[in-house]
Amino acid sequence: MEKKRIVIIGAGFAGLNAARELAKLDVNVTLIDRRNHHTFQPLLYQVALSVLNPADIAEPIRSVFRGVQNVEVLLDEAVSFNLDQRTVMLGSGTELQYDYLVVATGATHSYFGKDEWASLAPGLKTIEDALVIRRRVLEAFELAEREMVEKGTHPQLTFVVIGGGPTGVELAGAISDIAKLYMRHDFRHIVPSQAKVMILEGSPNILGPYPDDLKQKAREQLGALKVEVHTSTTVTDIQPDRVIVKDSEGVSRSIEATVTLWAAGVQASPLGRKLGLPLNRRGQVTVDQFLNPEGYPELFVCGDLAHFEQDGRQVPGVAQPAMQMGTHVAKLINADLKNQPRKPFRYFDKGDMATIGRKAAIAKVVWPFRAHLSGVPAWLTWLLIHVAFLINFRSRLSVLRQWVHTYLFFKNGARLILGLQDTPNGGDPLAQNKANLNSKAMPAGD
Amino acid sequence: MEKKRIVIIGAGFAGLNAARELAKLDVNVTLIDRRNHHTFQPLLYQVALSVLNPADIAEPIRSVFRGVQNVEVLLDEAVSFNLDQRTVMLGSGTELQYDYLVVATGATHSYFGKDEWASLAPGLKTIEDALVIRRRVLEAFELAEREMVEKGTHPQLTFVVIGGGPTGVELAGAISDIAKLYMRHDFRHIVPSQAKVMILEGSPNILGPYPDDLKQKAREQLGALKVEVHTSTTVTDIQPDRVIVKDSEGVSRSIEATVTLWAAGVQASPLGRKLGLPLNRRGQVTVDQFLNPEGYPELFVCGDLAHFEQDGRQVPGVAQPAMQMGTHVAKLINADLKNQPRKPFRYFDKGDMATIGRKAAIAKVVWPFRAHLSGVPAWLTWLLIHVAFLINFRSRLSVLRQWVHTYLFFKNGARLILGLQDTPNGGDPLAQNKANLNSKAMPAGD
Repeated sequence: MEKKRIVIIGAGFAGLNAARELAKLDVNVTLIDRRNHHTFQPLLYQVALSVLNPADIAEPIRSVFRGVQNVEVLLDEAVSFNLDQRTVMLGSGTELQYDYLVVATGATHSYFGKDEWASLAPGLKTIEDALVIRRRVLEAFELAEREMVEKGTHPQLTFVVIGGGPTGVELAGAISDIAKLYMRHDFRHIVPSQAKVMILEGSPNILGPYPDDLKQKAREQLGALKVEVHTSTTVTDIQPDRVIVKDSEGVSRSIEATVTLWAAGVQASPLGRKLGLPLNRRGQVTVDQFLNPEGYPELFVCGDLAHFEQDGRQVPGVAQPAMQMGTHVAKLINADLKNQPRKPFRYFDKGDMATIGRKAAIAKVVWPFRAHLSGVPAWLTWLLIHVAFLINFRSRLSVLRQWVHTYLFFKNGARLILGLQDTPNGGDPLAQNKANLNSKAMPAGD
Repeated sequence: MEKKRIVIIGAGFAGLNAARELAKLDVNVTLIDRRNHHTFQPLLYQVALSVLNPADIAEPIRSVFRGVQNVEVLLDEAVSFNLDQRTVMLGSGTELQYDYLVVATGATHSYFGKDEWASLAPGLKTIEDALVIRRRVLEAFELAEREMVEKGTHPQLTFVVIGGGPTGVELAGAISDIAKLYMRHDFRHIVPSQAKVMILEGSPNILGPYPDDLKQKAREQLGALKVEVHTSTTVTDIQPDRVIVKDSEGVSRSIEATVTLWAAGVQASPLGRKLGLPLNRRGQVTVDQFLNPEGYPELFVCGDLAHFEQDGRQVPGVAQPAMQMGTHVAKLINADLKNQPRKPFRYFDKGDMATIGRKAAIAKVVWPFRAHLSGVPAWLTWLLIHVAFLINFRSRLSVLRQWVHTYLFFKNGARLILGLQDTPNGGDPLAQNKANLNSKAMPAGD
């Protein structure tokens, strides 16, 4: 009998893990992503603040499945589905037939309908985003230095981070670190440590999901870094040089901002809508205990695109659940192949952590022991876990090693295709080159 | 008496070395570049072919002069000069007064007046160029794989490199290596090693400046890599999917090209023209034995922008002479400060080498011994010299080491600002952000 064909849309944590596990089964897997690399999102903010380089946290999807014969990788984008015919239409025009479909295209920024804010306050979801943020932050300091030479003075540098979730806190803490520690000896005229860093959070507290004691610790650590935290502060407008906010009393004021960053809202990938299934208000697809939308046992929705409830609470949109969902999908399909009953998915929560800066972090540890850590212990825990992750993630360990790899083991560097033009309404990420290649059908000569 | 102010335009090999040496003197140095990083150009082709990552061969200029109090770095661009008043006007609007001026803005591509070719056949001078080439080459393979899935066939992949100098040979050899060695196990449908790689050279032989025996060796090694070398072949037109050429008999033909790369012509940086001094046909400024254009002892022109003749031959536009010129400028200025006679510049030629691919290269060694090397010995020589260079160039040795640097020694990763929009007619690389910052002059609030 013919092998089952499993199509996976999205090579984030969920899709990549699903493909890795499915590769071990006697099935054919087609993994589709619009980028040629998987991104280790938890460390994106470090790329944005130049602590790490893109290649350190991104891995070409092809390298992950190098030599894995039953996994084919396509650099393409899903544009429409026919769930009854079990087909996916791709941006390239290819139509794929599937026995099982895994949709895991994750989440993107939400500007709550104010899309014009996107260019004024970039968010952080991709390597390209990180390089945009890096550029804005670094250029702000460069400009101030220039202004000093030209005018002997420069406007106050203020970095405003909108959103007090883990990403916002990590960004704000890292900017403060850069300004105070790493840039100390870089400039002759400005004093980078005089830069102001601000977090604007609409709700009464930052780091919503964390327990109160850790929220408190986080605020103390941010205070030590001189990061101003403004809670119950709603952004009503973003302009090129300022952010207009309203406090809980409805009093409006204007905050000057050299650089404004967006870490406030996320929404599910727009692809969710194209499935034609019921969505929650954040555009996520509600799935049952087998990660299926009701009525589609051969369709799995995983990661940030899925709305999965456990013990009456929605599982958070972070890396751990996404990875576990991806792995579980392979188990479910394996059960089907063996005509065994499917086991329901259960999220195994090991805990959560957020870095605040150098030697500063908070960690809610649930496994292997229960603890609330903060400060250096939390930061060291964070560091160890992520170093381990990155290495397992076969990040390039050094130029020398890379050269050895390249020249002796025929394995070369991170083949990142950067600068991808986003096509929000779907479309073909390779359109530009495609026209070119297709024209080859014509006879040569002129 | 007041310290002399030395303004250096361009942080390439010449400008960077001049600044490093001048930093040791009792002078004030202002180093200006439109990018925030120095690029190790000899290895750019390895970034283009994903062997190395941008951060491996680029170093933020500020990091190089971190803590060096008498060197100030400005991210700006020279737009005009008044050599009699000894002033430079910058794109930001700042006017700088100098006692000595060092102009070392290097070279750029020349499409021999056919600027419309630039987008069809990108050249390789900057990290941005390298990432464009990387993207085109990698996407060509991705596209072919997709075509196989869609149509069961794909057009022949052909990579055409225009120009048979060292860069052209390095690019062609590296593409062949990637296709044959590193991509072997990456694709399920296409056979990357079937890709054609071609060098088109107008003159009768490749690697013009090298001795005949090494040219011969190079051709043999390219042959072993199955790189087609077409000499005496002049490009008359470049189209999106083909290159039109004419052979020595004037017979014209069309060559299909999936990706076309430009390594044919370079010309001096356009800034040379703005000096209002006599130029050679490649736009270089003729300088005397003290690296001065006639009549301007306080103006030094170095590196690829300079036309300097020694023993009746022009010193080549490569890294070694540029570095030596930069260092010598500091010696000349030092002599002036001490009222000692200036020593004429003499290029000390250690030799030249070009890699052709893995374990393949040619090297004309002049010092410490005279030899013509090829194959593995030449390649090992090349590898050792460049590894040594990169390390001395404090390239990031690993993520871990980088984290140690970052967290313990307050020194963070390569702060590259990528994606700079080129402004060929001069102008301000920071214009975008500048509007933003300047508007800060206005009172807050609305």
